[in-house]
Amino acid sequence: MSQFEITKKNKVVRGAKRATYDEQEIFEILDAGFLCHLAFNINDQPFMIPTAYGRRGDILYVHGSVKSRTIKNVAKGVPVCLSVTHLDGLVLARSAFHHSVNYRSVVIYGTAVEITERSDKNEALYCITENILKGRWNEARKPNEKELDITGVLAIKIESASAKIRAGGPVDELEDYDLDIWAGHLPMQTSFGDSISDEKLKEGIAVSSSVKEVEGNKFS
Amino acid sequence: MSQFEITKKNKVVRGAKRATYDEQEIFEILDAGFLCHLAFNINDQPFMIPTAYGRRGDILYVHGSVKSRTIKNVAKGVPVCLSVTHLDGLVLARSAFHHSVNYRSVVIYGTAVEITERSDKNEALYCITENILKGRWNEARKPNEKELDITGVLAIKIESASAKIRAGGPVDELEDYDLDIWAGHLPMQTSFGDSISDEKLKEGIAVSSSVKEVEGNKFS
Repeated sequence: MSQFEITKKNKVVRGAKRATYDEQEIFEILDAGFLCHLAFNINDQPFMIPTAYGRRGDILYVHGSVKSRTIKNVAKGVPVCLSVTHLDGLVLARSAFHHSVNYRSVVIYGTAVEITERSDKNEALYCITENILKGRWNEARKPNEKELDITGVLAIKIESASAKIRAGGPVDELEDYDLDIWAGHLPMQTSFGDSISDEKLKEGIAVSSSVKEVEGNKFS
Repeated sequence: MSQFEITKKNKVVRGAKRATYDEQEIFEILDAGFLCHLAFNINDQPFMIPTAYGRRGDILYVHGSVKSRTIKNVAKGVPVCLSVTHLDGLVLARSAFHHSVNYRSVVIYGTAVEITERSDKNEALYCITENILKGRWNEARKPNEKELDITGVLAIKIESASAKIRAGGPVDELEDYDLDIWAGHLPMQTSFGDSISDEKLKEGIAVSSSVKEVEGNKFS
């Protein structure tokens, strides 16, 4: 079992019982999603964007237009913080104080390296696209050189990380269990609906297998 | 119609067609959720946490233990960046390049003020709790003085903000519409499941109305 070293940066200060530094658990939370929030600084002002990612080992790939503020600034090798959160439900205690949320969340610290070689960019875009929808890359028309050239791709090595996981029902103060207040938890779930074909779809083209594989299913 | 001023900070650089600075649209995206990612700096290192929020006018409230890193550092009045993102689906184009995601996202810039008066804290916690589940505050046992004292509450005034919204199907390069590749979009939806009563629930207590109101329903 491999663990991320616990340092001042990634140490979970509050709710330490819910924290984990285990690499496998952290990777599982990352692999269950494809949308992260990516934060970075410009002159002491924090900026953040929601963006898609893909993982290979301890590297996370993100992409954007080469003209975007994020790509231009993060490519300089500044420290970044990246978070992925899955919301699993509401925790409804007897006391307002003990209300909580069930979730799986990861916070990653690292620095980004810009990928410049077309073949490496292509590999990273494969990784991001497949993380969004497995099997889609081979169904789609692959990026051409112009498309690769206007896409900025960053590799963020996970230098430090922590996760927090909360599951199950509420925990109340001992004296509150006698109150006539309903308590419990309310699961939340993100799912795929039914696919909607493009209005301009050529006749006679069936829904792709990548899409058929997930439509109507739970997501994370 | 009130708009946030477009400055260098909140100006959407890429995908400007999808951007809005309209206060009402931004508030609607905020009010459709309760989980944000909050980013701040300590010595040029960005930190981020997922946390719940509530909105009153142009103020967002967040809370945490008075001992938490976020509360302790953000309460100093440093600039923060806060983002709320609703994932609405996958956009599956013919080309890998034009793949996208349907979403509603807001990025907020502001500075936090710590709320110290117990009655103001109570008001802010009411706002956060009601934003998570409307009607729950009055069902629950209210915070006592000790609980208010160990809860740190921050008010973040929205000084600058922008939103991006993408909806609908893919847009491909003209020459790609002839390819025999399925294209379309795949909606995603977060929903509440059925409530699960606490194992230690006193006998004869019915599920609260706040919970009955939302269980099985769509979330955002």
